[in-house]
Amino acid sequence: MNGIESRRKAVRKALKTKGIDAFFVGSLRNIRYLTGFTGSSAFVLLTRERGLFFTDFRYQEQAAEEVGHYEIEIERGKRIDVLRTLAKKLGIQRLGFETSLSFEFYSALKRLPVDLVPVRDLVEDLRKRKDDQEIGTIRTAAERAERAFLSIKPRIRVGAREREIALRLEEQLKKEGCRTIPFDIIIASGRNAAMPHAKPTDKKIEKGDFVIIDWGGEAEGYYSDMTRTLLMAGDSLSEKIRIYAIVNEAREKALRAVKTGAKTRDVDRAAREVIRGAGYGEYFGHGTGHGVGLEVHETPRVSWVRSEGITPGMVFTIEPGIYLPGLGGVRIEDMVAVRKDTAELLTSLGRDLEIIGS
Amino acid sequence: MNGIESRRKAVRKALKTKGIDAFFVGSLRNIRYLTGFTGSSAFVLLTRERGLFFTDFRYQEQAAEEVGHYEIEIERGKRIDVLRTLAKKLGIQRLGFETSLSFEFYSALKRLPVDLVPVRDLVEDLRKRKDDQEIGTIRTAAERAERAFLSIKPRIRVGAREREIALRLEEQLKKEGCRTIPFDIIIASGRNAAMPHAKPTDKKIEKGDFVIIDWGGEAEGYYSDMTRTLLMAGDSLSEKIRIYAIVNEAREKALRAVKTGAKTRDVDRAAREVIRGAGYGEYFGHGTGHGVGLEVHETPRVSWVRSEGITPGMVFTIEPGIYLPGLGGVRIEDMVAVRKDTAELLTSLGRDLEIIGS
Repeated sequence: MNGIESRRKAVRKALKTKGIDAFFVGSLRNIRYLTGFTGSSAFVLLTRERGLFFTDFRYQEQAAEEVGHYEIEIERGKRIDVLRTLAKKLGIQRLGFETSLSFEFYSALKRLPVDLVPVRDLVEDLRKRKDDQEIGTIRTAAERAERAFLSIKPRIRVGAREREIALRLEEQLKKEGCRTIPFDIIIASGRNAAMPHAKPTDKKIEKGDFVIIDWGGEAEGYYSDMTRTLLMAGDSLSEKIRIYAIVNEAREKALRAVKTGAKTRDVDRAAREVIRGAGYGEYFGHGTGHGVGLEVHETPRVSWVRSEGITPGMVFTIEPGIYLPGLGGVRIEDMVAVRKDTAELLTSLGRDLEIIGS
Repeated sequence: MNGIESRRKAVRKALKTKGIDAFFVGSLRNIRYLTGFTGSSAFVLLTRERGLFFTDFRYQEQAAEEVGHYEIEIERGKRIDVLRTLAKKLGIQRLGFETSLSFEFYSALKRLPVDLVPVRDLVEDLRKRKDDQEIGTIRTAAERAERAFLSIKPRIRVGAREREIALRLEEQLKKEGCRTIPFDIIIASGRNAAMPHAKPTDKKIEKGDFVIIDWGGEAEGYYSDMTRTLLMAGDSLSEKIRIYAIVNEAREKALRAVKTGAKTRDVDRAAREVIRGAGYGEYFGHGTGHGVGLEVHETPRVSWVRSEGITPGMVFTIEPGIYLPGLGGVRIEDMVAVRKDTAELLTSLGRDLEIIGS
């Protein structure tokens, strides 16, 4: 049984448990996961027996190529009218819907002669448990990202502009085969590195700057996400070297906390305790990590806000950081895949401090 | 009064009319429009007197730079808890929310001790009426796109691969100053051009191929979107030349139908009648156009499904097409800005059939 079939089977089983006749899926990521479709307009209706896939005319040929295991139909007219007709034809009494659906479409659904059942994270929870093939694809996305970085790394030197480096890195990611870029690349140097989500500017890299590089790759719709921080040679580097060592230790401790049966909050705490203990707690304002897959930010969150059990197949980032206004910042981000007995690193570039131009 | 101030004033006026004490804005595009913030985590709470802007720690510095006219606060803990505290502190009784909000967050809002008021398209309707500055920015986005295209156009020739052309065009868009690319560029040749949303493949362009190029630019967060179709020299081009002429006439007729006071459906009909009249009606399966601004697809839709009055400040595409399985397809897409008495073209590249290599 291939991935698509087993995913559909898992959804069906859940429908039965919840006493739902049909499940309306509108999230494009979930549709991609359930059907293989990569276009931008579709919905899926899964009943206990049938799998109906609807897309509009523009994607007719693409759907025929990509979508197996589903009855492919072309969506004509308003979606709510298509659903009304289907509900009648298929005798749907209890209709499940994703809670990520907009209030607006929910309001339209309420007017159908069916009982509505909110379904939270059914497909998202399946997506959290990646199979070997998915983990392999994410590894490919990470390898592409690392090769692209290594090829442009010599450009990261005093005098180079952040934006130019970002452009080159993006170009190289495409050359490596990434069809899309998961998020705008961050190249943040000097004071800019104090902003965890800085956009590349025309600023030139200067002596003594930290340079944060946060980028990701793609393979078959799956993403990777990683960060390295380089230090430019210069004067008075001692605090910077110290901060780097603290973040790197936090990363190491968090990684060691990743294991089946532990909690995501434990991983966050492991990183946070190192940084707090060194007196920089208030300068690490974001969570320690997040799930990565068909979305570059997906469940689980690895933070103090929510916690959940770590299970095999989860893929997430470990990315502690310290950001000091005026001085700059450090973030080191790796990706791990949780296996039954181990945590497998999907990123391989070194994490030791590199001082460029020394 | 600058754009941000007048937008906030317009929202306030609507709140008063609707008897709403405060309006919760979660859509990032709407937040950008109302505040200038370009990051990816924020919400806005507009009361009749105050404008509160919340973002998380990562965007603290960025918000300070980008967001004027609002009280900037850092969001700590769960959003729903922050809102509960605010509702109490500000004495909010009737809370408006965008209908694009997820069912999930709506369910959380329902537990607050306030009356909820769904607000549909309030900010979206403001966004539809672009001011001169916005139209100028969109024009810049279109100019960048056109310059990028002209610089890579010599690469579009027999033997070139679709994907390579797409890569070069994207690179050139970035060089022109586009920080993001509004959508994956379409380079579709030969049979691939029969798919309105084809992704670039490793296919080489062949003699007699139609090549559809659908791409867009960006400037300050505003997008442009256009399409040209080139024909490669070859044998038996007569049907292709005929189809091109039909689509081009449809485009011309639709453009002439754009005027203040007309309906969007009239514009769609003008294009559709030409294509139907020529016997290709069933091969033009998509709408004639869509609004473009902070999103590359926004209201108004220009199609047969919905209709609305055309008003000054609207910016939308005109993009009829004919797609023949096996043979290929043609789409020609321009952008217009509606002015009080005229329709101003924002795209300027020629639309006459170009036969490459003849």
